[in-house]
Amino acid sequence: MIVKMKRTSTQAEYDNLVNALKNRGFSIKDVSSETVRIFGIIGDTATLELTDVKAFDGVEQVIRVQTPFKQASRTFKESDTVITLPNGVHIGKDHPVMIAGPCSVESSAQLKAIAGSLFKQGIRILRGGAFKPRTSPYTFQGLGEEGLLLLREVADQYAMAVISEIPSSELLPLFEKYVDIIQVGARNMQNFQLLKVLGQSKKPIMLKRGLSATIEEWLMSAEYILSQGNPNVILCERGIRTFETYTRNTLDLSAVLAIKELSHLPVIVDPSHASGRWTMIGPLSKAALSVGADGLMVEVHNDPENALSDGAQSLKIHRFDTMMEELKSLSESLRRPLI
Amino acid sequence: MIVKMKRTSTQAEYDNLVNALKNRGFSIKDVSSETVRIFGIIGDTATLELTDVKAFDGVEQVIRVQTPFKQASRTFKESDTVITLPNGVHIGKDHPVMIAGPCSVESSAQLKAIAGSLFKQGIRILRGGAFKPRTSPYTFQGLGEEGLLLLREVADQYAMAVISEIPSSELLPLFEKYVDIIQVGARNMQNFQLLKVLGQSKKPIMLKRGLSATIEEWLMSAEYILSQGNPNVILCERGIRTFETYTRNTLDLSAVLAIKELSHLPVIVDPSHASGRWTMIGPLSKAALSVGADGLMVEVHNDPENALSDGAQSLKIHRFDTMMEELKSLSESLRRPLI
Amino acid sequence: MIVKMKRTSTQAEYDNLVNALKNRGFSIKDVSSETVRIFGIIGDTATLELTDVKAFDGVEQVIRVQTPFKQASRTFKESDTVITLPNGVHIGKDHPVMIAGPCSVESSAQLKAIAGSLFKQGIRILRGGAFKPRTSPYTFQGLGEEGLLLLREVADQYAMAVISEIPSSELLPLFEKYVDIIQVGARNMQNFQLLKVLGQSKKPIMLKRGLSATIEEWLMSAEYILSQGNPNVILCERGIRTFETYTRNTLDLSAVLAIKELSHLPVIVDPSHASGRWTMIGPLSKAALSVGADGLMVEVHNDPENALSDGAQSLKIHRFDTMMEELKSLSESLRRPLI
Amino acid sequence: MIVKMKRTSTQAEYDNLVNALKNRGFSIKDVSSETVRIFGIIGDTATLELTDVKAFDGVEQVIRVQTPFKQASRTFKESDTVITLPNGVHIGKDHPVMIAGPCSVESSAQLKAIAGSLFKQGIRILRGGAFKPRTSPYTFQGLGEEGLLLLREVADQYAMAVISEIPSSELLPLFEKYVDIIQVGARNMQNFQLLKVLGQSKKPIMLKRGLSATIEEWLMSAEYILSQGNPNVILCERGIRTFETYTRNTLDLSAVLAIKELSHLPVIVDPSHASGRWTMIGPLSKAALSVGADGLMVEVHNDPENALSDGAQSLKIHRFDTMMEELKSLSESLRRPLI
Repeated sequence: MIVKMKRTSTQAEYDNLVNALKNRGFSIKDVSSETVRIFGIIGDTATLELTDVKAFDGVEQVIRVQTPFKQASRTFKESDTVITLPNGVHIGKDHPVMIAGPCSVESSAQLKAIAGSLFKQGIRILRGGAFKPRTSPYTFQGLGEEGLLLLREVADQYAMAVISEIPSSELLPLFEKYVDIIQVGARNMQNFQLLKVLGQSKKPIMLKRGLSATIEEWLMSAEYILSQGNPNVILCERGIRTFETYTRNTLDLSAVLAIKELSHLPVIVDPSHASGRWTMIGPLSKAALSVGADGLMVEVHNDPENALSDGAQSLKIHRFDTMMEELKSLSESLRRPLI
Repeated sequence: MIVKMKRTSTQAEYDNLVNALKNRGFSIKDVSSETVRIFGIIGDTATLELTDVKAFDGVEQVIRVQTPFKQASRTFKESDTVITLPNGVHIGKDHPVMIAGPCSVESSAQLKAIAGSLFKQGIRILRGGAFKPRTSPYTFQGLGEEGLLLLREVADQYAMAVISEIPSSELLPLFEKYVDIIQVGARNMQNFQLLKVLGQSKKPIMLKRGLSATIEEWLMSAEYILSQGNPNVILCERGIRTFETYTRNTLDLSAVLAIKELSHLPVIVDPSHASGRWTMIGPLSKAALSVGADGLMVEVHNDPENALSDGAQSLKIHRFDTMMEELKSLSESLRRPLI
Repeated sequence: MIVKMKRTSTQAEYDNLVNALKNRGFSIKDVSSETVRIFGIIGDTATLELTDVKAFDGVEQVIRVQTPFKQASRTFKESDTVITLPNGVHIGKDHPVMIAGPCSVESSAQLKAIAGSLFKQGIRILRGGAFKPRTSPYTFQGLGEEGLLLLREVADQYAMAVISEIPSSELLPLFEKYVDIIQVGARNMQNFQLLKVLGQSKKPIMLKRGLSATIEEWLMSAEYILSQGNPNVILCERGIRTFETYTRNTLDLSAVLAIKELSHLPVIVDPSHASGRWTMIGPLSKAALSVGADGLMVEVHNDPENALSDGAQSLKIHRFDTMMEELKSLSESLRRPLI
Repeated sequence: MIVKMKRTSTQAEYDNLVNALKNRGFSIKDVSSETVRIFGIIGDTATLELTDVKAFDGVEQVIRVQTPFKQASRTFKESDTVITLPNGVHIGKDHPVMIAGPCSVESSAQLKAIAGSLFKQGIRILRGGAFKPRTSPYTFQGLGEEGLLLLREVADQYAMAVISEIPSSELLPLFEKYVDIIQVGARNMQNFQLLKVLGQSKKPIMLKRGLSATIEEWLMSAEYILSQGNPNVILCERGIRTFETYTRNTLDLSAVLAIKELSHLPVIVDPSHASGRWTMIGPLSKAALSVGADGLMVEVHNDPENALSDGAQSLKIHRFDTMMEELKSLSESLRRPLI
């Protein structure tokens, strides 16, 4: 951590701060020039918040140079994390995986129709929402436990693993009973209480990037889970908020590359939520494979016009089939075949 | 809600969508011109999500013209909402209120020192964090229930009301026992599960604006609480994320004016979190009163350099005293005296 | 254009606005419901600014439903625009093109070394900055006319076309003399005076997307050029500003898809400026080809560590060679071979 | 400037970079710890771009700790800059000034009607656009030179100074002839060619903040003007782009406080463009005075409903009169009376 003192700061202010830091066990390396007083704080600065240092009189700027995350970093663990699901599917490292299913679980019939089609394409992980975080209290909120039960039943028929989004920590026992991967939604990325509780679970956690989160904040949220003892975190890039309104969000594929540099955790791309437009799912999926994503998560629906949520960003089954052919071919030419 | 069809859309696509909408009880008014097919959907469109309509083939754009919030709107309730606390303080309408206290409750001694000073300035509402949403799991997380207990004890000595942030819905019984206003933090603004639970409480809720939330999204989160039966929602503008890094966030004072036009709910301004710099708290507080905010919430600390969190944005007590003199004088010249 | 009147608006205010619009030649279609007064304005609304209508008393909201751009739209011209350069290279439609070269022209030796290597890879368009828009007045500002001259000379040796950025309209004669494509930089995207002047040139114009421009604003800037009579506009996505700081900007590949839906103009991707990191250029180039970009523009340097500008985002020549092999192979499997 | 090397960097990479910097005249102070290699670059780092250093192999991060602007900084000049106009009005330091007038000059009659009313309120600086930067080429583009002439004639009648926006550097002779302050619009804030030319003028320049510019970028643009020899720069905060759409932009009043800390230049606030809503101009003007702005610039129109541009954000004259009474009273209670 680097501290720059104000032009108008006094020697007493400098001494006061330096002594306080030494008392907390840090050592100091001064890099002042003639015109500016600057020093580095050496030690475990992950335990130090920028604002703690800024509180001192005379401080102009405090800059973090070491990443505040530890267990999520490549420094902590060099090799790619691979997560193995109960049905034998691996996430991370060698093969990108495809996760697919409806936005919301609506009925047994709907789910069976979709899962059956996915199975034919070789899909091994089924997604579906049972507790939906809708922006309006007046719209469909999901089937709740019944939705989780349906997901489990249908997935078991096809030896698929199940992923679904948890809305709140008190529902953890329910999710541990029914699902194989617990998803944390973008709006809960900094619900630290939820992250702590999930850190005590043994289930893999898929952590979606927050709507306007930086990569560092995202990895700090992963750190919350890891620091509680759960090493199985999957990151999911799903677009960030920008000024552009033509698309629902702006898919940030550079983030996949950045995560690969900074962290050992697998990272998945969700082009459905990123664009909010089914016409873009195919091309963006190809792009995600091109930058080396560890998988894709897409919304597929047998009848999107009558879907109870997010129909605009769901692929019809025949379009999904066409897309899968193209993705399989592309992934082979990229030498990381999709599974 | 206005629907614009694609240039390439067919009559069959148009009929398909219009019929589906009619089946859901809406009526249709066509405004097509020669070059573009456009129509309005008439009815309770708050129950309709934009994406539901976008899912239909042939749709280019769907635009909401009626606000998706109902009970939060001025149309629903013309007169300003006034919330009365157990100690007799009113929030809303006539007088702006001052809420003050430390970022985190650290000890009995700290809290007594601060509250005693606030009391001399006539402050009637004490703030303090007991469960802190920190971005790093390695930093101080708050005293928990002990912090709430300390807040209650110290506040009672001075007939003050207490406000503190709730991190998770399962802690509601604890908060109902100790505090008078339950705060929802910016990072939880779209934690819909928490909002629903708080909607069933009888305590006033202070809902902070999310880090990059629009005013409409903020009011939709208020709607979640209102729609469950709790009418006592206070909004709190605390700065939004922008590209500027000199300040922690960018205080959006136009939002106060917008809320006054769109809603009957009281709106408070938090200049401490907005700027992250104690030097800006005084001037931004004046600006907030100038645009008609219903109150201010500021961080005050007896020893910010040794604060366990957010010292950089806390005022020392003697500076708070000076600021209060200036604010009282300004608020009188604005004819809305601060209480 | 749709107008929504305020809840509190009067019949007189409504009549006043409607009459003013009729006087300007528009017709009106009313879509009011019981609770809200709304109407559509029919006619050439591209000549009407939103703020013109908002100025009227009683207006709450004005929404544009027809795109404000005309000649840039697919409605105006269905088929893809193809631009042919003097050396016979086509931009648009069938084959993506590769544009490469140094950020700045520094010397004849530098340029020859780079161009020679590019030629071996089959590159037919050479880029290089002669007038550099630097954020600091204290850094290298480019060689000026000498830079343009060097570009022309070296390009002619290899039958390459030349592209370079114009800083200001009075330099147009110079650019018309030396270059084949005139580039408008991101910071000048809304320099309307420059756009008008370029609209009177016969040279193709490459218009970079502004740092935080929406797609609509970008196409409106293209419209400025088109409306003056120059039909040869190439768009260039080069990343937009977001909260992420790990990358210089955030490459928005959905924008390529959006442009293809909305417009007939070719769109190129610049992964060098988008990411600011040479390690990301290869993967992002693949992603850009995957979504159907009409070309790529990348920075290549023979000695980036001693480059006079933007070395961080330049590929060394041997890395460029490796990347080209991969891109050629990928573009063939995508069935749009790179030229 | 602080450089952090990659975890995987080698001693040779470190030596290579350090030697290159020493060859450019910088000295190096190493602050490495056991786990990370970090050093400071000492010298005139304003001549060094971050990307120049990032180009070296092995570099992870480069952080600027000294401001890249020099002449614009308080370090360069401690005391507030005061600019005196030909009519004797001072901008900066003691008294905030009011600048008012129509968005566009439309006719002699319009300008006379407005200026006469402003004169009665004591306004000494008249604003008006003659060359309008409109986002659409199909809307009113301003009267051009005739507009400047009208401004000058009408202003002279009332001994007012004139401010108007310059669209392009070749028009400088015209602006030097007619106006007293030359305005650079937000969209031209980084039109460096224009800034350089204005730096050679003797006229005061009002530099508007770019639509999504940081404070540092804004001051760097001021630096362009100052570095060419023109010391008379006035900054103008006019709102920045955020996700909020209820207001046209988001007024950033913390920026006024930041400028006062970082720079000696005067800073003016434009609440008309910031909000795009005339109802907010009064309250935001009060807020701007409360934070210590050196002045206000507002749009006033005798007939906004028939204005040729930006009527939505113009105050009618009678509303302007009411606002002025309130602002005069407020500014007196703030002890910085408005002139």
